[in-house]
Amino acid sequence: MKRVYTIGVDFGTESGRALLVDITNGQEVATHVTPYPHGVMDEVLIHSGSKLEQDWALQHPGDYLEVIRQSIPSVLAEANVSPDQVIGIGIDFTACTMMPLDAGGTPLCMLDEWRDHPHSWVKLWKHHAAQDEASLINETAKRRGETFLARYGGKLSSEWMLAKSLQILNEAPELYEQAVLFMEAADWVVMQLTGQLARSSCTAGYKANWHKREGYPSRQFLQSLDPRFGDLVEKKLRGPVKPLGSKAGGLTESMAALTGLLPGTAVAVANIDAHAMVPAVSVVTPGKLVLAMGTSTCHLILSDKEVTGEGICGVVEDGIIPGYYGYEAGQSAVGDIFAWYVDEAVPEYVRHKAAEERLGIHEWLEKEAAQYAPGQTGLLAIDWWNGSRSVLMDADLSGVILGLTLQTKPAEIYRTLLEATAFGTRAIIDAFTESGMDVQELYACGGLPQRNRLLMQIYADVTGKEIKVADTVQTAAFGAAMFGAVAAGKEQGGFGSIVEAAEAMARVREETFKPIEANVRIYDRLYKEYKGLHDYLGRGENGVLKRLKALKSGGRQ
Amino acid sequence: MKRVYTIGVDFGTESGRALLVDITNGQEVATHVTPYPHGVMDEVLIHSGSKLEQDWALQHPGDYLEVIRQSIPSVLAEANVSPDQVIGIGIDFTACTMMPLDAGGTPLCMLDEWRDHPHSWVKLWKHHAAQDEASLINETAKRRGETFLARYGGKLSSEWMLAKSLQILNEAPELYEQAVLFMEAADWVVMQLTGQLARSSCTAGYKANWHKREGYPSRQFLQSLDPRFGDLVEKKLRGPVKPLGSKAGGLTESMAALTGLLPGTAVAVANIDAHAMVPAVSVVTPGKLVLAMGTSTCHLILSDKEVTGEGICGVVEDGIIPGYYGYEAGQSAVGDIFAWYVDEAVPEYVRHKAAEERLGIHEWLEKEAAQYAPGQTGLLAIDWWNGSRSVLMDADLSGVILGLTLQTKPAEIYRTLLEATAFGTRAIIDAFTESGMDVQELYACGGLPQRNRLLMQIYADVTGKEIKVADTVQTAAFGAAMFGAVAAGKEQGGFGSIVEAAEAMARVREETFKPIEANVRIYDRLYKEYKGLHDYLGRGENGVLKRLKALKSGGRQ
Repeated sequence: MKRVYTIGVDFGTESGRALLVDITNGQEVATHVTPYPHGVMDEVLIHSGSKLEQDWALQHPGDYLEVIRQSIPSVLAEANVSPDQVIGIGIDFTACTMMPLDAGGTPLCMLDEWRDHPHSWVKLWKHHAAQDEASLINETAKRRGETFLARYGGKLSSEWMLAKSLQILNEAPELYEQAVLFMEAADWVVMQLTGQLARSSCTAGYKANWHKREGYPSRQFLQSLDPRFGDLVEKKLRGPVKPLGSKAGGLTESMAALTGLLPGTAVAVANIDAHAMVPAVSVVTPGKLVLAMGTSTCHLILSDKEVTGEGICGVVEDGIIPGYYGYEAGQSAVGDIFAWYVDEAVPEYVRHKAAEERLGIHEWLEKEAAQYAPGQTGLLAIDWWNGSRSVLMDADLSGVILGLTLQTKPAEIYRTLLEATAFGTRAIIDAFTESGMDVQELYACGGLPQRNRLLMQIYADVTGKEIKVADTVQTAAFGAAMFGAVAAGKEQGGFGSIVEAAEAMARVREETFKPIEANVRIYDRLYKEYKGLHDYLGRGENGVLKRLKALKSGGRQ
Repeated sequence: MKRVYTIGVDFGTESGRALLVDITNGQEVATHVTPYPHGVMDEVLIHSGSKLEQDWALQHPGDYLEVIRQSIPSVLAEANVSPDQVIGIGIDFTACTMMPLDAGGTPLCMLDEWRDHPHSWVKLWKHHAAQDEASLINETAKRRGETFLARYGGKLSSEWMLAKSLQILNEAPELYEQAVLFMEAADWVVMQLTGQLARSSCTAGYKANWHKREGYPSRQFLQSLDPRFGDLVEKKLRGPVKPLGSKAGGLTESMAALTGLLPGTAVAVANIDAHAMVPAVSVVTPGKLVLAMGTSTCHLILSDKEVTGEGICGVVEDGIIPGYYGYEAGQSAVGDIFAWYVDEAVPEYVRHKAAEERLGIHEWLEKEAAQYAPGQTGLLAIDWWNGSRSVLMDADLSGVILGLTLQTKPAEIYRTLLEATAFGTRAIIDAFTESGMDVQELYACGGLPQRNRLLMQIYADVTGKEIKVADTVQTAAFGAAMFGAVAAGKEQGGFGSIVEAAEAMARVREETFKPIEANVRIYDRLYKEYKGLHDYLGRGENGVLKRLKALKSGGRQ
């Protein structure tokens, strides 16, 4: 029997990855990573070299095509698979990662006349400069009693499509005028592959506040934000929204030539990276919270019912798995905090010790941090290095460490940062539970859980819940590949639904992380401290963090 | 005319220094530093290698004699001065740095039978393990309405003689029983030099709660702490308390042989390091706050009146300059915080950049930190890395940093730590002012102000006051040398009083640091934030720092 394959392409923050999977057994046959040549632009703009304002984060759309051009042929070659054995392609992406296009679908930043304008570039998910716009959106929606607001925890994020679009209108009205479309990078790549404009129900639902029956926010609401903003949906966001798992189109001739695949190969509607991971760890029913852990963490869970409440960044019907309401929450920095610590605050002697023991810095710190019992560092941190996505949805909050002494050692701080992100996840679980959702067990996937046993044990101890870990390092790409096989359909040797695909392909590791009772008791006390400070500093009783941020911005003007 | 000299010996936390000064003009002729061979013992005990409990800090008394043996002959040789030209010796010391002695004046730690017992060693000023004892002392004194309490801001420190002595009784009653004397290391060194038991009015007043007219705390009070503690004063603290500036005795034959000085050379009653600096920077009248800035900062001011209030760690009549009430306050870590940061949290790339520019790490960080305007880092810290001496007198508090983001750079954190210590000093000035004291200008001395222009400017901007800086790096040793010349007296070519000595010898630099109005305005806002958190975290509204500390201690038991 001839083997049949599917390809998933995962577009992350720093690089893109293609993964070729055998659809009969889920075996990962080949993978290839292409780092983005331009990386994340958060200090200066390319070409002109002009300085970017605080909180900006941009990308180059050409980098995404570079991933397609390099990584797909690489996996085909490595696996020695012929093009006709690949029945489908799925992609997943960071979101909301958006860009303005001209009438021909070309990103404005790729045109000479616009390339020196920062607003012409791709705004990466972690571009955080649209907080003023988000605040206006939230105040206005609340005042007008907009029904969509409740589906997003009562607040829309500065990271999302509306705030980012409104920032463009506010700061670059001439560019806003010129832009014929605003698109998620996810949908833009699918458009490059297929020549078809097909927006995803997942990106539209979670990031542009689209609803299966109600559609996008109304013209009246948009006009009330700014009279020029009223046509956002009809003009800039036009195009069909297609359900997850459906086929966006077939691969174009030129893309076939570029990738080495056959023209017409099924391309699935795009997915968000974290959302693609849910079926990839075999979760297709309620009660199971998926933690997609990387630079940031996305929390995803399915439910039969539609509820609203704090901590829910978004609920979208059929947004993750058809037939269920998909709920999303998130922490805007997790692995990023650990990386910041290693880059900016780990002393030289730690590097020397790690090198002596032939360990990486993270590995050495984890090994040392594991020597401490919970509470033994005397430290506590609040994980707002990149603001608070859930449960406070406030990008102007910032990180805090308490308990520092002259005896404090690097491994203690490292452990404290791991714990802080676990407390952040527990705050989300508590909020979900208060909203009436049942969280039974955790499924961890993404880059972090694979490498960090201590991190997983801390999460189990802090949440008091068993954690299962994905059996693949490339969970998002794996999920995207599954959707590629669904887009191809049964006739092509694929699947009739994502549930069928999960049954055939998805796996978790046999070993799980179980809470240790003695640790749970101490973390219950520490979490109480975390929650007290979280509310004191985050809910306005002491607005010091927001005032520090305001003073910082003022100082740079 | 034959020149006349005096020698000051300054015993610091890590080393001791001798300074030979020309008394006619204050010229510093020669200086020599002897690092303590055993340094600070805060992790393991020597000999046995047994682990010390958290918050312990011990020293080896032999190290002090090593300073005498090495540094005094060195300055004589370097200056080419004959022994008969040296008319006096003064010493200054960290305090309360205390030890138990046997009947012959030998420290118990130097006896084989006791050396493996941690309580036999010198408890350094920053030994912080007697907080339980300090709490009991304070509660009991308050309940009994003890009058001495008000002279120490309503709280005695865990660093002082009573708490440290009571800790010995509690944890090692057999050793307490065996100890014939408890002595300040300052007074012990004077006893070694002169063969005379003479306690200093300065060490006794500030660290053992002695009062010129009322004496030490009463037997009844001490008994109420523990029945076995009633004879502390009569037995362990016996010996005459002599006023500052008086002569403790003449140099013994054996010490003359060891140092190369003449037998009988006048030795002054010992001084506390910070207190010795006051006349050394020419301050002999009220209104001038002296900041003795090193690993920690001591704040000293003179007044005509006796007042009590928060923030005052001690008021002792004639405790600094005869004829005035001398007030003391302090921050228990200042330079120590900057050193901790450089040792434990400065990344390798900073070291590389500093090396490339041929700068020390502190120098490079200071240069970079100077690029930021006040408020521009978005960061704020509370300077409790070693607890809060003034104004909260609570060793169980710990350091806090707020405002951290993924963009936070090392120089920003460094600047924030400098600022945090300046806010701590402002809190002390505010407390002094509220107690009715007039603080007109600041005089900075000690190791830090000499090297750190940015630090001085930040202090001027945060306090809104002009700062004058000592014209000597060895201010404490200089002050000690002045007291040596006073002990020698007029007949020997010395001085009749410390005021006369200050007129002849003391100097400040011509250049001063003046507050910059625009900076003062921003720091007023930041100080308000500091003060809000200081009170919230330090006065019990949220006792998280103390609970973290308790959990930490529990975790190690």
